Amino acid sequence: MAATVYFDHNATTPVDPVVLEAMLPWLSGRFGNASSRHELGRAARQAVDEARYKVAAAVGAHVTEVVFTSGGSEANNLFIKGAAAALKPGVLAVSAVEHPSVIKPAEQLARRGWQPIRLAVDGEGRVDEAAYRQALSLKPKLASVMLANNETGVLQDVAALADTARDSGTVFHTDGVQALGKMPLDFRALNACGVHALTLSAHKLGGPKGAGALVLDKGIGIEALVAGGGQERGLRSGTENVAAIVGFGAACELATRRLADRAVLLGALRQRLEDGLRAQGAILFGGGARRLPNTVSFAISGFDGETLIAHLDRAGFALASGAACSSANPHPSHVLAAMGVPDGLARGAVRMSLGTGNTQEEIDAFLVALRDTAAKLQRLTAFAVVPTTLETE
Amino acid sequence: MAATVYFDHNATTPVDPVVLEAMLPWLSGRFGNASSRHELGRAARQAVDEARYKVAAAVGAHVTEVVFTSGGSEANNLFIKGAAAALKPGVLAVSAVEHPSVIKPAEQLARRGWQPIRLAVDGEGRVDEAAYRQALSLKPKLASVMLANNETGVLQDVAALADTARDSGTVFHTDGVQALGKMPLDFRALNACGVHALTLSAHKLGGPKGAGALVLDKGIGIEALVAGGGQERGLRSGTENVAAIVGFGAACELATRRLADRAVLLGALRQRLEDGLRAQGAILFGGGARRLPNTVSFAISGFDGETLIAHLDRAGFALASGAACSSANPHPSHVLAAMGVPDGLARGAVRMSLGTGNTQEEIDAFLVALRDTAAKLQRLTAFAVVPTTLETE
Repeated sequence: MAATVYFDHNATTPVDPVVLEAMLPWLSGRFGNASSRHELGRAARQAVDEARYKVAAAVGAHVTEVVFTSGGSEANNLFIKGAAAALKPGVLAVSAVEHPSVIKPAEQLARRGWQPIRLAVDGEGRVDEAAYRQALSLKPKLASVMLANNETGVLQDVAALADTARDSGTVFHTDGVQALGKMPLDFRALNACGVHALTLSAHKLGGPKGAGALVLDKGIGIEALVAGGGQERGLRSGTENVAAIVGFGAACELATRRLADRAVLLGALRQRLEDGLRAQGAILFGGGARRLPNTVSFAISGFDGETLIAHLDRAGFALASGAACSSANPHPSHVLAAMGVPDGLARGAVRMSLGTGNTQEEIDAFLVALRDTAAKLQRLTAFAVVPTTLETE
Repeated sequence: MAATVYFDHNATTPVDPVVLEAMLPWLSGRFGNASSRHELGRAARQAVDEARYKVAAAVGAHVTEVVFTSGGSEANNLFIKGAAAALKPGVLAVSAVEHPSVIKPAEQLARRGWQPIRLAVDGEGRVDEAAYRQALSLKPKLASVMLANNETGVLQDVAALADTARDSGTVFHTDGVQALGKMPLDFRALNACGVHALTLSAHKLGGPKGAGALVLDKGIGIEALVAGGGQERGLRSGTENVAAIVGFGAACELATRRLADRAVLLGALRQRLEDGLRAQGAILFGGGARRLPNTVSFAISGFDGETLIAHLDRAGFALASGAACSSANPHPSHVLAAMGVPDGLARGAVRMSLGTGNTQEEIDAFLVALRDTAAKLQRLTAFAVVPTTLETE
């Protein structure tokens, strides 16, 4: 089998060699605990602080606003549960297309007297304006709407949504995990529009798994999810994962430098891919909306997504069906369901998420493989139909 | 300055080269998300499962009982808050010498209607029997007593304590972070005595920072702390930190193989160290109790611990004053306070925690450096006393 062509960068990305190089000293000789006061400890503390500066710089935040966590899921839970713990229960509004690490903690809060509501989206996956205004009339204490969707890449106008929510006194959070490194992010500007917190993750942009952050307006009080030794201004205790945090900083630095070139490159690859997919009769989900430059979610009517990706995997192409984060979940995508995609078509969904390593040749090879796979599956189905037809007669 | 002699293994340990070797493929070519269904994802899933087997084997648990977390602090919080969320509020008993990642979440629960109580310890740092029986009469729903203390190395008879708590119907947790790799651990045996959950951490035994586990009796229901994609049987969502988990497994495998030799080696080094310390008039905290083979906590009357470790750091010895995990905390150790150590003496506390890399020569060099430092500080103090005396006259 040929080397895998990787089209699943929204699930995770390879660690950039520059990032790994930056991490290695902290996995060998420079192994101190950043809370230790001796030389080895102080070196680790300085490395964490430098990484904090890089992460803050990448998203236009102040260093004191960055709270390191073990990843995006933890940061989402930290905000949702932490902000809720600091308030009296009330309405909590999250969009219907949020990542499970926002939806699930919101559901858990229902057991603590909170009233979680889902913000409906339109057919392209954008928060529906009328539904949103209606939700705001309930004066939600907390709201969370992601910057970019992991399955479709569809962008939300988070700044405008937060701005509208100001009159309701809503504390507003946005999940920026998929946006980071793929589009410009400016927490200062978002904050000026009423966004109070932003979730980030390292492993979606060439950093390692095991590091993420909640960027938090210091005016917002939250309770720690992991309480203990008092690390991260008391908001996230536990020995800092120095190597992963250093890698996160390095990845942010690289991504910032490469952002403009990357968007052009990925945009061109995606255009070629989408043209090819449409030529094969594919339906593109969220195709009419502003999207991340790297993400395409599609289905070809009559084909099952799982079957397609299994065949394409054997042909050397790594893709996702629905969201990789919920592969344990046999139900079709909640994102597509919220967009009104019929169940049958949603079961055909394939997600392709490109990265800087991908090439035009890989896109072309994929389009050929997809056509071949579809043809093969169609032949198999044609044969399979015969006994089925006989049986039903 | 000479290379640092590292005597702070209870704060963190160097990553064993064998462990790093095992981790590296997962930080480069084998970068898949363990939830992805393609080849790269399945390889990651298999690596996580193999690591789970190794961690389970190291502590005599079943693979299905191991819930991976980002570390020990998270695992402690997961148990305390997670078990509490599944119960009606009641009494929660934790020993007075627990790690802050047990004490702090217990305090947070007070805001949710729980009644946290502290179990008093005797002068050696062991849970006081009479106080314990009195606490059990309050029928605590949850209890947490650590296997070995991070500051003093003092062991608790957790099996006996849990066994006594059975009649009260208490769900019993133990923090095994410092015990793992330094003494035999058998979750099956502990479980048979009524211990329901055990916290572990990778970076205290030659593994990387960023991985830990809660070993959990499957009969105990707990709510996820990090909810979302449903990883770890729904008890800990978020993309698995594959490299760190693989490192955790490798470290457990090594530690199990080396345990007996290690205990002998460390025990001999500690004996030599303690003899030397006593000869210099040091007071050993918990010196009369069964302790981890690697930990010594001491003070020399009249000397400030912070000052001693700062001078010894410059001389090339890495030590901790009190617990490294609370270096942000200027108060003297809560562990020593609970043991009845007077504040003045507790401020003199120095913690030495040995590792397999340490040698007899290092112990001897340290004892010389300690004597020299004490003599130097005494001279400085003698000079400093003059103006103070003049001023007060």
